[in-house]
Amino acid sequence: MSVTAAAGFTAHGVAAGIKSSGGLDVAVVINAGPRCVAAAQLTSNRFAAAPVHLTRDHVSDGQARAVVLNSGCANACTGERGLADARETAQTVAAAAGVEVGDVLVCSTGMIGEPLPMEQLLPGVREAVAGAHTEGGGAAAEAILTTDTHSKQACVSGDGYAIGGMAKGAGMLAPGLATMLVVITTDADVDAAVAQTALAEACRTTFNRLDSDGCMSTNDTVILLASGASGRTPDPDDFTESLREVCARLGRELIGDAEGASHDIAITVARAASESQAEAAARCVARSNLFKTAIFGADPNWGRIVSELGTLSEEVCAYAPEDVSVSMNGVEICRGGEVGEPRDLVDLSAREVAITIDLGAGSASATVWTNDLTHDYVEENSAYSS
Amino acid sequence: MSVTAAAGFTAHGVAAGIKSSGGLDVAVVINAGPRCVAAAQLTSNRFAAAPVHLTRDHVSDGQARAVVLNSGCANACTGERGLADARETAQTVAAAAGVEVGDVLVCSTGMIGEPLPMEQLLPGVREAVAGAHTEGGGAAAEAILTTDTHSKQACVSGDGYAIGGMAKGAGMLAPGLATMLVVITTDADVDAAVAQTALAEACRTTFNRLDSDGCMSTNDTVILLASGASGRTPDPDDFTESLREVCARLGRELIGDAEGASHDIAITVARAASESQAEAAARCVARSNLFKTAIFGADPNWGRIVSELGTLSEEVCAYAPEDVSVSMNGVEICRGGEVGEPRDLVDLSAREVAITIDLGAGSASATVWTNDLTHDYVEENSAYSS
Repeated sequence: MSVTAAAGFTAHGVAAGIKSSGGLDVAVVINAGPRCVAAAQLTSNRFAAAPVHLTRDHVSDGQARAVVLNSGCANACTGERGLADARETAQTVAAAAGVEVGDVLVCSTGMIGEPLPMEQLLPGVREAVAGAHTEGGGAAAEAILTTDTHSKQACVSGDGYAIGGMAKGAGMLAPGLATMLVVITTDADVDAAVAQTALAEACRTTFNRLDSDGCMSTNDTVILLASGASGRTPDPDDFTESLREVCARLGRELIGDAEGASHDIAITVARAASESQAEAAARCVARSNLFKTAIFGADPNWGRIVSELGTLSEEVCAYAPEDVSVSMNGVEICRGGEVGEPRDLVDLSAREVAITIDLGAGSASATVWTNDLTHDYVEENSAYSS
Repeated sequence: MSVTAAAGFTAHGVAAGIKSSGGLDVAVVINAGPRCVAAAQLTSNRFAAAPVHLTRDHVSDGQARAVVLNSGCANACTGERGLADARETAQTVAAAAGVEVGDVLVCSTGMIGEPLPMEQLLPGVREAVAGAHTEGGGAAAEAILTTDTHSKQACVSGDGYAIGGMAKGAGMLAPGLATMLVVITTDADVDAAVAQTALAEACRTTFNRLDSDGCMSTNDTVILLASGASGRTPDPDDFTESLREVCARLGRELIGDAEGASHDIAITVARAASESQAEAAARCVARSNLFKTAIFGADPNWGRIVSELGTLSEEVCAYAPEDVSVSMNGVEICRGGEVGEPRDLVDLSAREVAITIDLGAGSASATVWTNDLTHDYVEENSAYSS
């Protein structure tokens, strides 16, 4: 499981005292090689946090030896001091692990607008590097959690190689990317170009199609490290599909643990004119508070779906209202833009809900995952500053 | 007050039995002239309801004699039958009031995807027309309410003429337009072109800058009727400003009565490069569930404001993160993209909250009104199908 499933990687998680709970809050993942290929997908937010800037800089040459991650503080909106703190964190890892500072990537998650508590953080970083071992993936996955209720890990086996990953993220889940930190490791022997292309494509249809609450974060980071330790060079397409599978599993876990949610909702838009039009339509419904509260109330209110589709311009999504049908958990409650089967037939008691919107406008489709809007979501996000 | 404040107008509201509560649910507003100028702003939703299509058709010649409105059923997503029902409603008004059917406008609000109960509606329509009188504005304003807790009316006096209006709307409040029905009457002597131009401009900066829950409805309609009974022909700019004032007051009442809200929030974006960029930035913050839950929790969490601004592309809104400041109720808690004054200084106990975002990128500004996201919002929209 996790980031130590692939050969060549060690990891660890420690409690440095950043979280007031005393829980694990600093993690490292170290690549012993022989290769040190790295790729990353980073938030497009213009208020991107200091560690995002540093990671973008350090990964630009396609290689990295270590990732250090902390929870409890996002180091976002912290100005020059935040950049200096991120740099010092990387230098501390570099010194402790005996690697170049330019080969260290940094991730932070937690409260925006607070400085990193460096007195706690740096000793924790040294302890994490010193303790890194080949079974440390579980502790690392614990140490990156914030409001998550459990750690998220996934692993798939390729043809002679492995891909494993860990993720955190429970709120501010919207692309690109969903609010999350993800580290994925592989012992496949891939070069930087293959790694970057595969990661971008895998994220496009997985993490970038999560939209729990419509809110994009300042710290989103997905990192792929490749050690080459298996000695196998996979076919790039096969590698991409295996990577997509890891991303999909981690993404499904993120939605399943979203703050306060009681339903995980897959919105599939089918028979669209293009995949991007299908995605735009699905995302638009995923962001409707009225739709999301209806699902919380187990109310198959398709009027709140079509009224949302109706806000899209013809250019963004081509369809004719009289051709649109909507199914919930297999019951076609809206047919041809009007009332279809009786809404009483829809059973919304299970956690997972499948919405299918048939636009009748083409042959493309896309699925966006979201959650319902619940009392617990309001409670978690109003009662605590985060 | 209301739609009978201006000379030349009668109105009435009756209980036709559409609402299960037995409350008033059918209203008429009738223009006795001498002129019968009319203008309308209608939802851009592609699933626009049958009455919207009929009203668009009937108002296209710039004149109308009567408006009939019902609550309890939106007559949306009802296909050919819905169009026939809207037409029959207009015909019933025309016969009862002795006007042309093409001079009758129709508005409906309530549940989507249910047919109008014509056996209840038509007798109610006849009763409303027969009872219309010059003091009937209050009853009409009652009869159009859905989840609103009270009726909404406003009136201003121009130079020798009056403008009065009524509005309903408490959910699906987002432009264009906010989910609402509004009828405004005036005894000013204006022609159809002046009426339409003034109405569009007045709506642009008032109703179109309400965004309570980000959800656009299928039935939004704002109608202006002008009788010319005062004999005064106002300066078009003065008329527009008076009309804007009526729209602003009605809009403020809509936000003040939004479903489940505990705060009314004015988000002003200042020093933007253009008014449209200021509006885009304000609207983007107004749609953030994390921002809205924070205000509900009286948490001055400016990180959730800047992370939202960060999602806007440079083309949509030009600014440099290090130039952005955010004030809440007068306290500049974010200055130059970093921590500003202590968040403890912010008092969010009052219902009205003022957020000012200074982009430092120009001299334009715009204000968008929204509400917080509360337990009561979730309750109202999950527990009842509407």
